[in-house]
Amino acid sequence: MAGRQAVKAYLDLVSQACRAVLIFLKDNKIPHTVENIAIRKGQHKTPEFTKLNPMQKLPVLEDNGFVLTESDAILKYLATAYNVPDHWYPKLPEKRARVDEYTAWNHANTRIHISSIFLHEGLLPLMGQPTHPEKLEKVLADLDGTLDKLENVFLKNQPFLCGDDISLADLLAVCELMQPLCSGRDILKDRPKLLSWRSRVQSALSDSFDEAHSVVYQIREKFTAKLSPCLKQATL
Amino acid sequence: MAGRQAVKAYLDLVSQACRAVLIFLKDNKIPHTVENIAIRKGQHKTPEFTKLNPMQKLPVLEDNGFVLTESDAILKYLATAYNVPDHWYPKLPEKRARVDEYTAWNHANTRIHISSIFLHEGLLPLMGQPTHPEKLEKVLADLDGTLDKLENVFLKNQPFLCGDDISLADLLAVCELMQPLCSGRDILKDRPKLLSWRSRVQSALSDSFDEAHSVVYQIREKFTAKLSPCLKQATL
Repeated sequence: MAGRQAVKAYLDLVSQACRAVLIFLKDNKIPHTVENIAIRKGQHKTPEFTKLNPMQKLPVLEDNGFVLTESDAILKYLATAYNVPDHWYPKLPEKRARVDEYTAWNHANTRIHISSIFLHEGLLPLMGQPTHPEKLEKVLADLDGTLDKLENVFLKNQPFLCGDDISLADLLAVCELMQPLCSGRDILKDRPKLLSWRSRVQSALSDSFDEAHSVVYQIREKFTAKLSPCLKQATL
Repeated sequence: MAGRQAVKAYLDLVSQACRAVLIFLKDNKIPHTVENIAIRKGQHKTPEFTKLNPMQKLPVLEDNGFVLTESDAILKYLATAYNVPDHWYPKLPEKRARVDEYTAWNHANTRIHISSIFLHEGLLPLMGQPTHPEKLEKVLADLDGTLDKLENVFLKNQPFLCGDDISLADLLAVCELMQPLCSGRDILKDRPKLLSWRSRVQSALSDSFDEAHSVVYQIREKFTAKLSPCLKQATL
């Protein structure tokens, strides 16, 4: 990789997928620079950014002129092009397929329900928009089903989602499951199996985990300070 | 692969993802057997099938005892383990990343909107349940945005979604975009660029495309025969 420029990552750490990319870059010591794109300021919709990514989404990776979107694809590309330890995205077809299986499942399960919670419990109240308690209740029930699957299928007989060691699947999942902390909700607090898994993942990631999640901790403080005492009691 | 057993695919061809897996197996002459699991009869929820796939979803692949779910993962596994022509899932990291980018994007875009149309326009009327025209209208508008992206981003400068040749991305996408035909709607009819792309994909796939889609053509006939004349006029 002599002479190779550092990769450039366009991120907003309020996005769970962006945190996963940053943690991966740091944890694997891949030379990188970060360009902060503030979603709350609409910086992902400027003409300049739209030229880079017509989908107007984050994260985006730029590697020597090669521009890539979608966190799944970015993480798999980095794992391959930067020759990181095999456990992240194993080369053996059966083991790799397990990671591909989770990352595909993630979209219509963990990802979709977590994003809905963030919308109903975090974004709408912060923007002063009306909330819909019945919709939030439905989303929380859907998420419960997903958490059951994480515990009883993926983690049934193994310490990490796809085997004996941490992989891209755990990284994507843990960043998703941390997101509701923004609105003061720890969705894992009554789930000892998932709590143990989260501890294992945090230990495996060391400092990069807390560094990337510092934004989440800050938002939680601001958000809970703004909430009425009774909502605070219900969500903390 | 001497002595290797044929893979076993659990499929219901009414599912777009199942059709993609069958086409891939046939087109690449991968020895396989098919176990038909009729979703309409609830065969994906039997205790026996639930043991095989606790998610109670199709498709499922079984390869010498290795059980895999999620169509993305199944196709990528088959491409790797069966050494199919490189264009399906290129080994070069930049080219592979393009396929991973589309297959990730597909979930929250093509897949989700097509599934909603199938629900509102196909399943609900066939099950005698109330329909929601305003929801269908919203879903069709969302799908329009997705079709715009397929034309103006993915197909902007190239004949296939990820480059100059057919890949897993085209296969997954074409099976999705055929699904509304079940309720008599050809969503591509006013989109010449996507129609040309679909023709290229069909030509590349030859007979396996129509074989896998014969169920869709049958459902379209049954469905449109059941519809009232005015609804028929609106959807054909």
